[in-house]
Amino acid sequence: MAKMNASFLELKKSYLFIEIGKRIREYIASHPDNKIIRMGIGDVTQPLVPVVVEAMKKAADEMGVKETFHGYEDSGMGYDFLREAVSGYYKKNGVEISPDEILISDGAKSDCGNIGDIFDSSTVVLVTDPAYPVYVDSSVMGGKKVIYANSDESNGFAAMPDKNVHADMIWLCSPNNPTGSAYTKEQLKEWVDYAIENDAIIIYDSAYEAFISDPDIPRSIFAVPEARRCAVEICSLSKTAGFTGTRCGYTVIPKELMLKTPTGEDISFMQLWCRRQGSKFNGVSYPVQRAAEAVFSPEGQAQTKKVIESYMANAKVMAETFDSLGIKYTGGKNSPYIWFKCPFGMGSWEFFDKLLNEAEVVGTPGEGFGKNGDGWFRLTAFNTLENTKEAMERFKKLFK
Amino acid sequence: MAKMNASFLELKKSYLFIEIGKRIREYIASHPDNKIIRMGIGDVTQPLVPVVVEAMKKAADEMGVKETFHGYEDSGMGYDFLREAVSGYYKKNGVEISPDEILISDGAKSDCGNIGDIFDSSTVVLVTDPAYPVYVDSSVMGGKKVIYANSDESNGFAAMPDKNVHADMIWLCSPNNPTGSAYTKEQLKEWVDYAIENDAIIIYDSAYEAFISDPDIPRSIFAVPEARRCAVEICSLSKTAGFTGTRCGYTVIPKELMLKTPTGEDISFMQLWCRRQGSKFNGVSYPVQRAAEAVFSPEGQAQTKKVIESYMANAKVMAETFDSLGIKYTGGKNSPYIWFKCPFGMGSWEFFDKLLNEAEVVGTPGEGFGKNGDGWFRLTAFNTLENTKEAMERFKKLFK
Repeated sequence: MAKMNASFLELKKSYLFIEIGKRIREYIASHPDNKIIRMGIGDVTQPLVPVVVEAMKKAADEMGVKETFHGYEDSGMGYDFLREAVSGYYKKNGVEISPDEILISDGAKSDCGNIGDIFDSSTVVLVTDPAYPVYVDSSVMGGKKVIYANSDESNGFAAMPDKNVHADMIWLCSPNNPTGSAYTKEQLKEWVDYAIENDAIIIYDSAYEAFISDPDIPRSIFAVPEARRCAVEICSLSKTAGFTGTRCGYTVIPKELMLKTPTGEDISFMQLWCRRQGSKFNGVSYPVQRAAEAVFSPEGQAQTKKVIESYMANAKVMAETFDSLGIKYTGGKNSPYIWFKCPFGMGSWEFFDKLLNEAEVVGTPGEGFGKNGDGWFRLTAFNTLENTKEAMERFKKLFK
Repeated sequence: MAKMNASFLELKKSYLFIEIGKRIREYIASHPDNKIIRMGIGDVTQPLVPVVVEAMKKAADEMGVKETFHGYEDSGMGYDFLREAVSGYYKKNGVEISPDEILISDGAKSDCGNIGDIFDSSTVVLVTDPAYPVYVDSSVMGGKKVIYANSDESNGFAAMPDKNVHADMIWLCSPNNPTGSAYTKEQLKEWVDYAIENDAIIIYDSAYEAFISDPDIPRSIFAVPEARRCAVEICSLSKTAGFTGTRCGYTVIPKELMLKTPTGEDISFMQLWCRRQGSKFNGVSYPVQRAAEAVFSPEGQAQTKKVIESYMANAKVMAETFDSLGIKYTGGKNSPYIWFKCPFGMGSWEFFDKLLNEAEVVGTPGEGFGKNGDGWFRLTAFNTLENTKEAMERFKKLFK
């Protein structure tokens, strides 16, 4: 009898974005001519930059000519040209990562979802709460035990390790989705020390690193050198360069990173992951890899920097609005997200409805990201400056 | 302590293509000016057809303009335009599949590798031997028990079910990689009956369906109507349209297909798979989906048909050579592969070396595909007609 993986029954039903969609549709149906401003879903709004489009088109042309056609990629782990470009990007940011420690993926979500496959099902997984739901869901699907570290008001929504709690695998995300908080180097060092103490592996999601402008906030966990012994970093071009619909990311696995065999021997993390990917993945589309390479060219860096700056200009407008209203928040500085406590003592969904009905602005109730999101709310800077300003004007009126 | 998934220790080390590469490099080093003809790896050699390249470039342009930019795909399961195109393709081949039963993937290998995730680890997996190594490797990684059905000379390398053996999950591939054999409708009906009798699910890999010209050989397991109760079909554009480096495929899950919960209730296969993909996958690149859509347009069908016909013209040259030499083989008719017993009583690797050293032709030793491949050999039609003819002339000389 073909039986299901019973761990799937342990998953929480996630109706967050479905419920948001339903409420928006209902509102639009009864107010068809009104202008709703969407600051809910974390998707980018600006198009791919010109140098990226040109690179993809050039690669598509190559694919149509026998002499320059690309079939299966030998390794499936990414073309050298892109691995070298990513390595150069790290170097520019002060971190040495060899190209052969960089694996190209079809986006951070795939690697975040699948990397638990090479860990034993007895693994205790520590997740900060609130968090991107993939960390918990993929752990639960794999039958692993999940424990939580609280991100809350007391620590500025940047959870720190508790030395009395043991974990084998640790998910960190900085700058954080959904809270916008970002770890300092000292805070990351504390996590790295905790991981080494526990023989644990940190999976570090740096998808929002491009939004960091503060020189004291590291863009990579490998800014802490000891992290090479205990961390994997998963990054994405989704937010860096608007690749949410183009699909490309990269994962860094230091050569010296090890897991333990059942008899306690060291075994190479890279070797295990490549064995997994070698059987279950066949590489990223060649034209997409060429498009990604263009992101790291001088022109690509200049063009994408402008896009990031435009989003951060929106975040500044939002932060100034919150400051003027005296509402405390995290994010908005090194992150496109602003995270705040729902005003008027409201719950997340209650405030969602008020914001939609009275200001025609859509945000995201915090409770979709974990229990510490109850009563909290997320707004994103992924919009035009004009819309952001208008949304903030409407927002202010709620408080009059 | 971060421990590895111990099931990975049960994997056989696969040195096949590494060893082939090594022997070729050594040969080239000592014969730098000679012309080696490669008929080993199953990669295509002809470029993307013009209509596909144009579609991808047009989509890349759309991605560079705000009004036509595509970010995250809502469902992550494929754009309607492509799901409808695939549905239309099935309809043309006489099978009714609704667009919402079609999920777009980044290639058959990913879905083949991951689909076992939603099955219980107690699942008994039946694999025909020889077979594409992903079926066994992904099952072993998931801690599942693998049993085999023999494909051998006695059944024309097309294994049939043994009613005395129970399985919960069954991997079939037709036309077969590596043996080139293809099931008739009656043979598929026998497998479907066996699956229903055992409450088992068939995962049907139809990656080579485009090479079928015989009207009596089904292009889909859903040509057997009862298959809707017991089968998933995984297909790819890799061989159909040269997408080995472009990466796109599709998976068909009938609405009525069910797995069992631990308490024996029915649960929708589609719902479970979408839950898995919703947490671990974020859809296929928009320009790649537009390129795939173009394959199913009338122009795309005409252009890709010519490419397939050119490969099958090579297969015909190969088949005629084998016929003239009196060497028995499977495939070559509805498949780009020819599978034959190594002549002169040789083993797979012994014949590999003879073919390389005496004819300068590269093939694939059968033993990389399972125990029934011992002493057998695979050649592919993915080459030019000129090279194929030359390779077959050299091949004939071995027998003089």
